[in-house]
Amino acid sequence: MSDTPDSAVQTARTHAVRAYVEQHRAAFLDDLAAWLRIPSVSAQPGHAPDVRASAEWLAAKLTETGFPAVEVWETAGAPAVFAEWPSDDENAPTVLVYGHHDVQPAAREDGWHTDPFEPVVRDGRMYARGASDDKGQVFFHTLGVRAHLAATGRTTPAVHLKLLVEGEEESGSPHFRALVEQHADRLAADAVIVSDTGMWSETTPTVCTGMRGVADCEIELYGPDQDIHSGSFGGAVPNPATVAGRLVAALHDEDERVAIPGFYDGAAPLDDAERALIAELPFDESSWLATAKSHGVLGEAGYSTLERVWARPTAEVNGIGGGYQGPGGKTIVPASAQLKISFRLVAGQDPDKIELAVRDWLAARVPAGIRYEITFGAPTRPCLTPLDHPALRSVAKAMSLAFDGAKIRFTREGGSGPAADLQDVLHAPVLFLGISVPSDGWHAPNEKVELDLLLKGVEAAAHLWSELPTARF
Amino acid sequence: MSDTPDSAVQTARTHAVRAYVEQHRAAFLDDLAAWLRIPSVSAQPGHAPDVRASAEWLAAKLTETGFPAVEVWETAGAPAVFAEWPSDDENAPTVLVYGHHDVQPAAREDGWHTDPFEPVVRDGRMYARGASDDKGQVFFHTLGVRAHLAATGRTTPAVHLKLLVEGEEESGSPHFRALVEQHADRLAADAVIVSDTGMWSETTPTVCTGMRGVADCEIELYGPDQDIHSGSFGGAVPNPATVAGRLVAALHDEDERVAIPGFYDGAAPLDDAERALIAELPFDESSWLATAKSHGVLGEAGYSTLERVWARPTAEVNGIGGGYQGPGGKTIVPASAQLKISFRLVAGQDPDKIELAVRDWLAARVPAGIRYEITFGAPTRPCLTPLDHPALRSVAKAMSLAFDGAKIRFTREGGSGPAADLQDVLHAPVLFLGISVPSDGWHAPNEKVELDLLLKGVEAAAHLWSELPTARF
Ligand SMILES: [Zn+2]
Ligand SMILES: [Zn+2]
Repeated sequence: MSDTPDSAVQTARTHAVRAYVEQHRAAFLDDLAAWLRIPSVSAQPGHAPDVRASAEWLAAKLTETGFPAVEVWETAGAPAVFAEWPSDDENAPTVLVYGHHDVQPAAREDGWHTDPFEPVVRDGRMYARGASDDKGQVFFHTLGVRAHLAATGRTTPAVHLKLLVEGEEESGSPHFRALVEQHADRLAADAVIVSDTGMWSETTPTVCTGMRGVADCEIELYGPDQDIHSGSFGGAVPNPATVAGRLVAALHDEDERVAIPGFYDGAAPLDDAERALIAELPFDESSWLATAKSHGVLGEAGYSTLERVWARPTAEVNGIGGGYQGPGGKTIVPASAQLKISFRLVAGQDPDKIELAVRDWLAARVPAGIRYEITFGAPTRPCLTPLDHPALRSVAKAMSLAFDGAKIRFTREGGSGPAADLQDVLHAPVLFLGISVPSDGWHAPNEKVELDLLLKGVEAAAHLWSELPTARF
Repeated sequence: MSDTPDSAVQTARTHAVRAYVEQHRAAFLDDLAAWLRIPSVSAQPGHAPDVRASAEWLAAKLTETGFPAVEVWETAGAPAVFAEWPSDDENAPTVLVYGHHDVQPAAREDGWHTDPFEPVVRDGRMYARGASDDKGQVFFHTLGVRAHLAATGRTTPAVHLKLLVEGEEESGSPHFRALVEQHADRLAADAVIVSDTGMWSETTPTVCTGMRGVADCEIELYGPDQDIHSGSFGGAVPNPATVAGRLVAALHDEDERVAIPGFYDGAAPLDDAERALIAELPFDESSWLATAKSHGVLGEAGYSTLERVWARPTAEVNGIGGGYQGPGGKTIVPASAQLKISFRLVAGQDPDKIELAVRDWLAARVPAGIRYEITFGAPTRPCLTPLDHPALRSVAKAMSLAFDGAKIRFTREGGSGPAADLQDVLHAPVLFLGISVPSDGWHAPNEKVELDLLLKGVEAAAHLWSELPTARF
């Protein structure tokens, strides 16, 4: 790997990247629009042919881009696209880019001002389903690698470049882990670049450093063999709906910390340096609450709202049910009750240990006379790249070059995603390169992408392939 | 009113009552069977003509019995029957008997061995829907008053006797209170005799002394404007399903006492004498649990199971719901949650004050960011006749005479019923005269009445009209 180029070389390269991008901007946007016209809605079986057409369209485009190897990979569900462009520097690091070509459902009557599958450019934005999530952010890698080659005069990228673009992310990626395991050899990489997240805002460029994991469970509680009369028996037998409520209440202590013994074991603490960086972000509680469609903040004592959603593990009740839920009243002791709880996890927490801790907690709390069952879904592990990781510095540097030298701040994602499967199976650090902003309206009507930001994404990708080989990791 | 007759007179009268009852037993049972053939199912609109036919059949039978005034009273729903037989002793106390002529639904395919509306006598039992609940127990008053007259040589009863037999009890008596209020003058009484309960068992004759009241409420809790993503927002905003659970947990303290401040204000304590009487009953926990279809006992510390269901107020979760309740998981913070809670009340507790206490408790516990609504249904007040009440002693005496001098013990009903409306509107003590036993299968397939017990009910009624005038209350 080469050393960092001197500043004159860097400046020249930055200009060259920008010039190449400007030159190809119109064709790039036309191509993206063509892809966005394919309604690759993975959650709707009727669109399965469109999801396949989307994969094939992308495969053809990647071939045209110059990737010497492009394959459509079948899964038990929708197809994924794999592409590979080896570097002629055989010592170059291997990088795997992740994205998805399927989109959320969208229909005009949901409140779209224009056809969601007929892209429209207005006021510097392209409106279409998938414009930012995730076709736009996958697509910036096509022009990105070309700009990288043009600006460096190379004929192959400075990294061994791989792309994996799945077709089921908006349906929960049910076959993704199996796909990654099946092709682990082909996918092997020194780093994974996920282009399926965003930035803080149009004016605050950021790099995401990790996602929370998630483990979820369903608890069934059984009391009487059938609903029984609360006059005749109430107050003398255990009520499974009451037990459900008591379990919910026992999930947290008075400081809103999760009260399950062992829950925090191994959880990576948030260090002062990162807390200081988070505190620098221009957080506005009222606008955050508007986005959350919520009317108050509440969370673990001692942490800010951003820290709570990005960097702290949680226990959340996703559903609760038991007894009579129809109109009016019914004086019964219910036969059963049900709880659905999910736990967001941070780096260092092991979903298997969380499961054991929850099982022990539950066993200790269910009273005699109530039978229970608990089942866990497949967990998603957390992923986090430390702020001082060399590859993360490269991503920040590439973003800064694209954003005219702006200071790049750091965020995290509170959610969980298939990136964790890549981390787990490939044993590679996961990094995030995305230019979408909260106003883009992911999963909502009138999804859009900011064209200026999209082209900065192209530039950042172009720079990243030059930067990463200088990082020793 | 006369003094208690001496023991020779009493013995003669007891024999006379029994002789009269034996003499008329066959005709009495034939008549009851005829009434039971009318499927007066109030909950099924298609049976409305049968409910009316049942009222008219009863009215005709009461006229034939000798009641000089018999009326069918219309309500906004099914008709009730009122009958009155004044005593020629104008200083006699006025007694109002309550029962109902409607029955629970029944169909052969529910597990009946014979047609539920074609009475069958087998092994000393009559099987039919309504045999014990409540046609049988209403009907024993027809032969009862005739036996009373025959044994005393009177031409009118020794009490001013009134009967009110409603037609909607199995549908929740929706128009009963309005009916009682409308006819309060005609219904005025010194005591109410409810013949719609039972005894401890075939071998342990008992008198019920009261029923619990009930107040119920529905609480709606609103958080985010819609279900929101638990990854993006969970752990930082209040979750209405979590709040619902915490409310449930806060209903009781560690001793399973209701923890709502003020809840027990005024509640009549269970005195040692009554506790001793309850403890004398041959209670078997495993058979009680089998009846409760439950697998453990749990209730207020310091009280037995019978005390808990008969004499202690409770808070019971009848229903809880919120968030995702379908198959699998869904990582949301739910927009709303719902609780249905009913409170059983004992003598001295005022439903209006309970409502205020619950409202205050709720207001103090719902966190900022959660909006709530609470609505209460129409409450039913508790009713309780003290063990030393003279009229209750008369009831016990009448039962003892019918049961060959057996010791009569006391029970209560954990449930709540329209008897409380009579107590409230008429300002009269409520007493219970019933001979049904738990094995009669109220509301279940193969409902029956024990014929020997039914005829003891006839005798007890006959004796009661002689006994009550001797009680000064
Ligand atoms: Zn996406
Ligand atoms: Zn009844």
